Amino acid sequence: MKIAVDGMGGDNAPGVVVEGVAEALKRYPDLEVLLVGHEKKMASHIKKYSLSRHSRLEVVHSEQYIRMDEPSTTALRGKKDSSITMAAMMVAKGEADALVSAGHTGATVAATKVKMRMLPGVARPALATIMPATQGPFILLDVGANIDCKPVHLAQFAIMGEAFARLAFSALRPRIGLLSVGEEDVKGNDLTKEAFKIISELPLNFIGNVEGNMLFHKAADVVVCDGFVGNVLLKSSEGMAKASMFWLKEALSKNPIRMTGAILMKQAFKELKEIGDAEEYGGARLLGVNGICVIGHGSSSPKAIRNAIRVAEESVKFGMNRIITQNIAEAGVAVGSERAPDKEQ
Amino acid sequence: MKIAVDGMGGDNAPGVVVEGVAEALKRYPDLEVLLVGHEKKMASHIKKYSLSRHSRLEVVHSEQYIRMDEPSTTALRGKKDSSITMAAMMVAKGEADALVSAGHTGATVAATKVKMRMLPGVARPALATIMPATQGPFILLDVGANIDCKPVHLAQFAIMGEAFARLAFSALRPRIGLLSVGEEDVKGNDLTKEAFKIISELPLNFIGNVEGNMLFHKAADVVVCDGFVGNVLLKSSEGMAKASMFWLKEALSKNPIRMTGAILMKQAFKELKEIGDAEEYGGARLLGVNGICVIGHGSSSPKAIRNAIRVAEESVKFGMNRIITQNIAEAGVAVGSERAPDKEQ
Repeated sequence: MKIAVDGMGGDNAPGVVVEGVAEALKRYPDLEVLLVGHEKKMASHIKKYSLSRHSRLEVVHSEQYIRMDEPSTTALRGKKDSSITMAAMMVAKGEADALVSAGHTGATVAATKVKMRMLPGVARPALATIMPATQGPFILLDVGANIDCKPVHLAQFAIMGEAFARLAFSALRPRIGLLSVGEEDVKGNDLTKEAFKIISELPLNFIGNVEGNMLFHKAADVVVCDGFVGNVLLKSSEGMAKASMFWLKEALSKNPIRMTGAILMKQAFKELKEIGDAEEYGGARLLGVNGICVIGHGSSSPKAIRNAIRVAEESVKFGMNRIITQNIAEAGVAVGSERAPDKEQ
Repeated sequence: MKIAVDGMGGDNAPGVVVEGVAEALKRYPDLEVLLVGHEKKMASHIKKYSLSRHSRLEVVHSEQYIRMDEPSTTALRGKKDSSITMAAMMVAKGEADALVSAGHTGATVAATKVKMRMLPGVARPALATIMPATQGPFILLDVGANIDCKPVHLAQFAIMGEAFARLAFSALRPRIGLLSVGEEDVKGNDLTKEAFKIISELPLNFIGNVEGNMLFHKAADVVVCDGFVGNVLLKSSEGMAKASMFWLKEALSKNPIRMTGAILMKQAFKELKEIGDAEEYGGARLLGVNGICVIGHGSSSPKAIRNAIRVAEESVKFGMNRIITQNIAEAGVAVGSERAPDKEQ
């Protein structure tokens, strides 16, 4: 199993990435890593974690890399040999089994679309994340790979999300929900109302519309939405979690009695923070491209990188893309998989 | 000042509504209330709160009312004299200055649109709520009055939201943001990218795109989005706040030390819960209709009803609709206010 890792991706790259790779190599004896990045910039970190002559690590030099603040399209056009493009190319060529990056999401999506291309019949990729809920985590997709969606795209997301849920939750018949503004079938916007009809016809365990207030109680195993709504939802949940911690700290530091109470509960707060901790889930999966691709948060820790590598490995072993391809093909005309792919691809 | 209150609106109507009206009458000596609802069903509650011969309360009987679980359109078609329709009619006729309902949001929006009609030049109504953020609350609109929006509608929402922020926050130049998936001008979906251009041309303090993660840190005083996104965001925030409390309780009850800590901090948790408490803000304002309309949460408490009545009064005194009409007219062609209103109106 060979995983191509973008050594330059993430807010604290390459240091954090190299450390995560070191942890993964230690933990997973079958793992081989192709670390793609600027050799000189990575050198001191590689030395620090004693990876200089590691038998299962190959360093692949890339002169260019994409900074987190660069616009994705111009970055890709101007930097044809960036670390992320090279890593995606390796998967496309079969030199690596999967790609892991904690870098620029937009650039990673664009690079994989161009280099790996789409799975047969899939019109658009979707970025799927695992989110916490009181009755266990759920999968939300798309969270930003595809901002403007057509109904048929949402139907394809439902199929891809189902395959992911089977892997992530070992669920046999994952419950698929469509994010909307009311539970009744007829509630929604033009996009979701049309998508509802298509998804209803698919051989999925479709439970219908799911409202925002039910999301965090695991109303469904998989919740489907367009990339705009999903991205707003993902980011606002992050923002709200941070705001809640801010308010909690403020309330707890108001007087000595409360501060004493807070000390007694220090561990509880730590546990609480970990519930929303995306690191455990190893990052978002880019579904629909012809190759396994895991995209970590820009602020990924070494642990998050290590987990991203682990889930990439799991996705390869599980044969997720074979399942997606098969299910998309079976859905046929209903999800537009028998048309020629759109010109954008 | 006469406020028409829908006595039958809300999960715990009419009891909770009558109690809220009683509190408001006690607190605001200039207030007169027209309580619209089923007389027999309200009678025992009116007696309980000694309102039977109150000089500033008039009970208006309505045989029909709309249950919370009824679809709004069929409800309005089948029940032409429901309490909410009658209350909206009273505002339209000038018999009341404002309408307050904790009932069925969809039915209330539909009834006010039909009976009060839109303000001159306004194409669509918007439901605006006040949300908590670490640096003080902000206004989010639309949260569900208008599910499928055109760019020009979002631009009108920006103008209406500004008027509301001037009242709610006493802000002279409220900062207006557009909810999107990236801060750069070019980020967004087709709808927001087009809306961005229109809003940029308006005489507003437009600060550009606001991302989900910044919302709860008060990136802006007013955040504009379509009714689908806003509704999902509002409900998911509610759901997440509830889930957070669930996790907090779970973490705190794990062992006696933590439970002791929790007791020391009981008051802190109470304060924490109040931060997200929509009751203080008195419910959502329906902007753009020709009359003041405040819609409370279905689960409104008497305090929430009382506050909804207070903010309705404030909106009337502030002359919010005059400001909205003037600003929409000044924006002219840019926001489509010089075209004939769409056929839907």
